Amino acid sequence: MDLKRYMAEKRATVDDALERYMPEPHGPAAALIKAMNYSLFAGGKRLRPILCIAGAEAVGGDAQKVMPVACALELIHTYSLIHDDLPAMDNDDLRRGKPTSHKVFGEAMAILAGDGLLTEAFNMLARLEAPERASSGILKKIISLIATASGWQGMVGGQAVDIQSEGKAIDAAVMDYIHSHKTGALITASVTSGAVLGGGTGMQMDAVGLYGEKIGLAFQIADDILDIEGNAEEMGKGVGGDSKKGKNTFPSVYGLNESKEILNLSIDAAIKSLENFDNKADPLRQIARYIIERKK
Amino acid sequence: MDLKRYMAEKRATVDDALERYMPEPHGPAAALIKAMNYSLFAGGKRLRPILCIAGAEAVGGDAQKVMPVACALELIHTYSLIHDDLPAMDNDDLRRGKPTSHKVFGEAMAILAGDGLLTEAFNMLARLEAPERASSGILKKIISLIATASGWQGMVGGQAVDIQSEGKAIDAAVMDYIHSHKTGALITASVTSGAVLGGGTGMQMDAVGLYGEKIGLAFQIADDILDIEGNAEEMGKGVGGDSKKGKNTFPSVYGLNESKEILNLSIDAAIKSLENFDNKADPLRQIARYIIERKK
Repeated sequence: MDLKRYMAEKRATVDDALERYMPEPHGPAAALIKAMNYSLFAGGKRLRPILCIAGAEAVGGDAQKVMPVACALELIHTYSLIHDDLPAMDNDDLRRGKPTSHKVFGEAMAILAGDGLLTEAFNMLARLEAPERASSGILKKIISLIATASGWQGMVGGQAVDIQSEGKAIDAAVMDYIHSHKTGALITASVTSGAVLGGGTGMQMDAVGLYGEKIGLAFQIADDILDIEGNAEEMGKGVGGDSKKGKNTFPSVYGLNESKEILNLSIDAAIKSLENFDNKADPLRQIARYIIERKK
Repeated sequence: MDLKRYMAEKRATVDDALERYMPEPHGPAAALIKAMNYSLFAGGKRLRPILCIAGAEAVGGDAQKVMPVACALELIHTYSLIHDDLPAMDNDDLRRGKPTSHKVFGEAMAILAGDGLLTEAFNMLARLEAPERASSGILKKIISLIATASGWQGMVGGQAVDIQSEGKAIDAAVMDYIHSHKTGALITASVTSGAVLGGGTGMQMDAVGLYGEKIGLAFQIADDILDIEGNAEEMGKGVGGDSKKGKNTFPSVYGLNESKEILNLSIDAAIKSLENFDNKADPLRQIARYIIERKK
């Protein structure tokens, strides 16, 4: 299979669905909707929605049926970027090569755009046509999985510990906590929610869960390495920003070489976790490899 | 019935449930959990949860079964207060007589505490034991009702228009939009979600929806009047803050006397909408009257 083509196709499908689901900037709240859409349609790779789709396909499920969940994941990811970029948080001016939300719309509107996207994500989940059998159970499972991965037990928790640790020396355990929660949790939830909706068996869910954990970790390590080795054009944001801000990164805690080794081992483990899956899991396998490719 | 006693009892039940549902401040994210709990247990009246319970009881439903929804509404209300108080928004130092979240925990943690509460609200909704029949439909309806009332079509939309209108002269239509969305929508959703869960009929839902709309409006007018006539002790926050900030309020658009008249008419309309209900709706009727009492 051709991953580049697969990702381009899925991305287009996700973008179509997002455009269908999101409101046009009309009415009194037009400025808010504009701010929400500005960040949502700023050229993201749609990695989380694609992982959700690929997770469903890997267990024989239907890509189209998971679309509300895939889109909800992208809304949550986007809200987290808007709030992370705020002056009180990471104070970033650029994101995906464009001025950040608060730079364009002001701080108040950026906070509200994030709040609006997070809330709308759950509205989107309520559109889900769950399978007839045990449909309430599946909807509950998906909501609980995504809310847990996004909230204090997941992404928001990781971001809080990250903010508190800035400028302090932290040990590997805290470092692992920050990364597995701040980035890893939602990536894991993306692929597992897809597999749940696709009708995965218990053993398949375990395997996909492990895959998600490993690529979540790999993704953050690759991001940290890119911050050192990449260039601003590839990243669409400032480079070397982490060390300037006294951020704790994998390279700052483990060193660059050991970070690269952990990255490779994580990718291998992710691919190995799918060994009992047939070629319907090829997109997941190739997405794992793509995470390393990104750093070139 | 004795409303004071009813509210005290329900409030205690809600507080018990919130304490059961919310995490203790342990582990790496302890500071975040502390910030979330600080605002959640800052002595709120629990009006939205109580409206949800009273809405369920009015149609013959069971108070205990709506508890996850009642608590989720309080989490959403609390998150909105934390974000509204931020320096970039209303920049308030006091809330319910205590220093606001960002004053105690800093801006970054206050933003994250709000994000964490909003996300956890939906996790709480996933705990709901919906009735067996059409349980997926009911869960979807509740999530959609609450997310719509809280997001860009509701509370966040109202807050965005409010922020944009600060210091500008606005007409009555914009004023009505701000109030019905910023405060009214979640109050309406509180009582209607209770009635949905309680098994209300279509006609009952219409009546309760109208009730919710009228008391939502009344609540905001009463709040605006209190900002002029109340004292800081009663309000637990600074008085006269709205006019200092150039906020558009009912009295600033309609004048004080006409505002009082609209308030009284809204309360009458709210009570009238329940005329076909028996005495199980007495708490709702008395809560409507209580909104006027507050201004004394």
